[in-house]
Order: sequence, then C-alpha cells, then structure tokens
Amino acid sequence: MKNISILGSTGSVGTQTLEIVRANNDLKVVAIAAKKNIKKLEEQIREFDPEIVCVYDEDAAEQLKISVADKNVKIVTGMDGLIEAATYDKAKLVVTAFVGMIGIIPTLECIKAGKDIALANKETLVTAGHLVMDLAKKHNVKILPVDSEHSAIFQSINGENHKEIDKIILTASGGPFRTWEKSKMKNVTIEDALKHPNWKMGPKITIDSATMVNKGLEVLEAKWLFDVDVDDVQIVIQPQSIIHSMVQFNDGAVMAQLGLPDMKLPIQYAIYYPERRYLAGEKADFGKIAQITFEDPDFEKFKGLSLAYRAGKIGGSMPTVLNAANEKAVAMFLNRQISFLEITEIIEYCMSYHQTIHNPTVQQILDIEQWVDEIVDKRW
Amino acid sequence: MKNISILGSTGSVGTQTLEIVRANNDLKVVAIAAKKNIKKLEEQIREFDPEIVCVYDEDAAEQLKISVADKNVKIVTGMDGLIEAATYDKAKLVVTAFVGMIGIIPTLECIKAGKDIALANKETLVTAGHLVMDLAKKHNVKILPVDSEHSAIFQSINGENHKEIDKIILTASGGPFRTWEKSKMKNVTIEDALKHPNWKMGPKITIDSATMVNKGLEVLEAKWLFDVDVDDVQIVIQPQSIIHSMVQFNDGAVMAQLGLPDMKLPIQYAIYYPERRYLAGEKADFGKIAQITFEDPDFEKFKGLSLAYRAGKIGGSMPTVLNAANEKAVAMFLNRQISFLEITEIIEYCMSYHQTIHNPTVQQILDIEQWVDEIVDKRW
Repeated sequence: MKNISILGSTGSVGTQTLEIVRANNDLKVVAIAAKKNIKKLEEQIREFDPEIVCVYDEDAAEQLKISVADKNVKIVTGMDGLIEAATYDKAKLVVTAFVGMIGIIPTLECIKAGKDIALANKETLVTAGHLVMDLAKKHNVKILPVDSEHSAIFQSINGENHKEIDKIILTASGGPFRTWEKSKMKNVTIEDALKHPNWKMGPKITIDSATMVNKGLEVLEAKWLFDVDVDDVQIVIQPQSIIHSMVQFNDGAVMAQLGLPDMKLPIQYAIYYPERRYLAGEKADFGKIAQITFEDPDFEKFKGLSLAYRAGKIGGSMPTVLNAANEKAVAMFLNRQISFLEITEIIEYCMSYHQTIHNPTVQQILDIEQWVDEIVDKRW
Repeated sequence: MKNISILGSTGSVGTQTLEIVRANNDLKVVAIAAKKNIKKLEEQIREFDPEIVCVYDEDAAEQLKISVADKNVKIVTGMDGLIEAATYDKAKLVVTAFVGMIGIIPTLECIKAGKDIALANKETLVTAGHLVMDLAKKHNVKILPVDSEHSAIFQSINGENHKEIDKIILTASGGPFRTWEKSKMKNVTIEDALKHPNWKMGPKITIDSATMVNKGLEVLEAKWLFDVDVDDVQIVIQPQSIIHSMVQFNDGAVMAQLGLPDMKLPIQYAIYYPERRYLAGEKADFGKIAQITFEDPDFEKFKGLSLAYRAGKIGGSMPTVLNAANEKAVAMFLNRQISFLEITEIIEYCMSYHQTIHNPTVQQILDIEQWVDEIVDKRW
C-alpha cells in the first residue's frame, strides 16, 4: 500500500489524482487539503477516508467540521494546518497541486519531512527553485514533475546521461489566440481566454495558457527540474498537443513522449515512478491523428514569453516578480478589472521596478509578492 | 581505443561507419570485409590501416593482394576468410553491414567469439533470429540495432521495463509508391523503384522499401530484437521520416526518437551505446519541419506487408522463405527479368509451397535458400 497526500485535492490535478487512487487499490489517500470547497471536500472525505484534512479558509473549516462530524477525521486550517497535512507522517509521497506561491512553505516542509513530491505547483519552482532543489538533494527526496510537458521531458531523459543533453524542446499548444491577429488581441474577453483548445484545466492556468505566460513559467520550471539554462530550453508550438515535449541530445537524437492529452498519465507516472501502470482511456491512434504540426512561437504577440526568458536570464528574485505580478494580474483580469493585454504590461512594469536579490530566502520571496501587490494596486 | 570490424565496409552502412571512425579518434578499424569492390577496399586500407581484410570474391582478393602489396595487411577470401575477419581477436565490436543471408554464419561466429554486434544485416535476424538471440544470451553478447527504426525503438525502451511495453509502432516512409494508384503499380520501372524519397541506401534495400517488404522484414526483425509478437508491432506511415519509430507503454505513453534522416546516428549509437557522442550535421528544426503526417499502411497495395505478418505468425522457417524469395526476386527485378509486382508474387508462391520447419538449424535455413532458388528458377 502506498500512502499519499494531496494538497489541492479539489482542483483539476487533485481530482484527477483521486481518479487514479480510485482505479488502483494499492493507493491510499491519508491527507488532503483545499482552499475552501467544502462540498467537494466532504464528498472526498466520504469516499476516500483521509485521516487529516486541511481547509485553508478558517470559516470553511469550521463548517466542514460540522458536516463531517460523523467521520473520524482531523480537520485543520490555515498555513499551520496546511503544513500539518503536508508533513503527515503516514504519507510517502505528496502531490502538490496548489495554484500559486502559497505552495512554497508547505512544499519545503514536505521535503524536510523526507517525502517525495509529485509537483504540479509550478509557481513554487519558479520562485523558490533554488531552495527546493537544494533541500531535495540534501534530504534525498525525489521531485517528480506532474506538468505534462515536464513529465514528457522527465520520461525522455529516463535512462540517459544528463551531460549529453543538448537542449530541451518544450512544446506548447499555442493557446486559443495562436491564430489571432496581434491587433485583435486587445479585445480578448475572459470568455475567449478561458477556451483552451486541448486541455481542461483550472481558470488561472487556462488564462496563463492564453497569455502563454504559462509556457514561460514552464521554461523557468524546466531550468530547475532539469538543471539547464533557460537558453537551452526552446519552445515549439505543436497545436495538436500530441507531442508533450522533447529532448535533443548531443548526437542529434530527439527523444519525445507522445500521447493523447490526458493529465492522468503524468500524475500516475509521478506516483508510481519508475514503474508504469496500466491506465484506462483512449490511446493515440496515429493513423487517425493524421498530422502533427509545428510553428515557432510569436514572441512579439506573446510578450509573456520574452519576459519569462528575460527573468530566467536575470535569475535570483526576478522570476518571483514575474510570477507574483502574473498571479496578481490574472486575478484582476478574472475580476474584470484589467484587459487581457494589461496582464503582461503589469508583469513588465513590476520587473522594471525590481532590484534583483541574488539568492532570495523564503521570506524575501514572500515579501516580493507583497511588494508586487502594493505597486500594482497603487498604479492600476 | 575501441577496436571494431566492419563486415560490408564498401556499402552504404559500411562507408558511413567509416565516416564515424574518421570523426572519432578513439575508434580503430581492425578488420573489414566486402564482396568484391576492391577499388574502394584499397582506399579504405590506405586510409584506415585495417590488419585483416576479407574480399569474399576469390579473384578480386587476388587482385587486391597485388595492389596493396606495399601494405602490411592480411587479405583473406571466401566464407572462411569472412569468418576470420568476423572473429578477429582484436575487435571488441563488429558492425554487420552485409546485405542478405550471407551474414548468418559470420554473425553466429562473431557471437561465439564474444563480440558485441552492431547489426545492420536484418536478413540474419529475420531468418535465424532464434539462433542469434539464444546464442547472444548464452555468450552475454549485445545485439545493437543499426536500422534507424530499430535504433529508435531501442532508444525509446532505454531505461524502461520490457514488461510494460504495450506495442511497438514502426514508422515507414511509405516509399516512392505511397501515393500511386494500385492500378499503376504494374508499370513500375527499376528507375521508379530506385527513387527513395528520404533515405539514400543500397539498391537491394531501396527496392525492398519500394515494395515495403523492407518494412515487413523490419517487423520480423523487431520480433527478435525486442521479444514481441508480430501482432504487437504496428506499422504507421510517416512520410517525412522524422519520427524514426515509437513504443507505446501500458499507461498509454508513447516514447519516440525523432530527428532528420541520417544513418550515422543509429550507427554511432550502436558503436558507443549507452554513451551518446556529439555528431556533426544538421539538426532537426521543428519550426522549419512544419508538419509530420501519419497514415495507416495499405496492405492490399503493398502485399509484401501482409506476407511478412503471415510469415511471422507461422514462424519457424517461413520467414526464411519470405526472405530468400525476396532476395531472389529483387535480384531478378534488378536484372530486368521480372516486373515489380512479380516480386511479391514470387514470395507468395514460395510461401505457399513451403512446409514449415519449427526450429530450423543454420543448415536447414541455407537449404531453404537453395530450395527457393530452384523452385523460382523452375517457374520463372
């Protein structure tokens, strides 16, 4: 029996992780955590019987306590509760499926507690990758990527020698605006931006895909996961999302992982790594797929990409500014406070005002988030 | 210093192997062998200084002795000479780049001598795969595929668990007649058949690609190399020859090796496996590649494919009949004795007359070659 915890159990990756648990009777969920969706949490408690449940929101936690009073489950709340769920001693692996920088501290605590991490919370690596990877090495903990692209890279370098990697080729669907004229981009509505062509995901990451900031964050994530320079990560648009990413080696061989878009594959791969388990669902039929196309990305139309490479090259705390400004701006866009193009404007504005800290601590990273919040509120 | 021998040094794979030797100063060629191209052999002797050279043709061997009388090189001839070159004690690895069943005995002798094999001579595996793989296991010898497809499969299962393989997806360019109407196929000329769209290869394999018998032989080769049933090998047409083959695992993940068509990559991979070395040459630029397309193969138009699966399912000596009849028929086609479509007619004719031997010996395999020769000569 493999005991796992899921932080962010009510989101897209969290619920798909639970589908995998449902299909495999050697998996047991011992702890779950979510922000405040107590209706879903109650269902999950009744189906999966976790021993500890964190509801980040205190009021929601109180309500949940009442509705599951008949169950033998410990309900905890806030950051302390999140850390308690993250480090619950019975878990061997923790799926970190939060959205945003809230994942930094619990992830670091997980690692200190010696738990392997199936990491879906890319913002933690983007902002605190230096801390996460160092700590993971120190505690001999595996950081297993759950993003489909990074899982594909991870699978492609399986059995290979890291020194022989020439470059990483990160594929991107290009999002809903790939074929839009640049001039039309200023009229993008929330509804337009939430229509992702291939992947069904949460709202924040869907907007990030529309701006392609998501791909930029993935470049920064790859930098830490695979110990490469951002210049060794090339983005290629592959609109059908069949090739999930590739790695080119020094002999010119390009290894790739392909398949129909299904997040359950990378989640399950991370949980059982290095074992592969049968996974139900439609398989790729190349005769039917008929074609895979490629394009170079448009760095001008998708300014977020250029900003991400810029932040990656500067390093230190600059990726934190990019990420925090993006989190802030996406929330504002979803609240209809700003237009679509203002998302990247806000990111560039914040980056231009930032004085980079070389090796930021957790506190400095979180302070930068605060600072970004303030300067954006002042100006917008 | 890694000492290698090259059997078939004047052919396409042989000369490309020598290009790799030329580019890597830790490789030394100690023995070479060829049928009778003594002009090229002399050049190779003068450039690479092998210690032993086999010219299969006796008259040609005598001539070569005279022309390289100034060199300190041992010239041998015939099957005994071929075996002497194949088992030359200083070599650690032997590249078997013969065309045809002539490779069976020298390959088996190589294995008995404990030498790793970079295998480009697919006919040996197709006809004597059961003997080759058993002997290799017994002598703890590596059989490293040099065919670009099998190398791609080999690279795709690197680091994976064999039990988790669901199927092998063997890609095929489809050859020069992929888009031809079936009715037009009876008018194919030698010149048409020798025009391969993507790969520059020797004449026999180029004709095999045009009939797609080559792909059928590759299915049978894959069966032995990767220990799978022929039904677990799916052929997918991928006309751009960018995806060199794929492997689907039980979780639905498809691992693939991609790149521009260049035989030097699989040759070098086999020589240095598991190490990858820098290889000069143009690399795949996916933005420029623009598209990769897929089709299911047409088993009716390319009857050789159906015949190969049929032979593979029957097993035993039937693949030998397929292969021997094909070797015979291709030679006849190249001599303008038969038409293009008669190649597969001859194969089917021979298969229909054959009584399968379950576990044929080398002698039985060679006798079948003889028998095929006779019945074809009698009828055509």
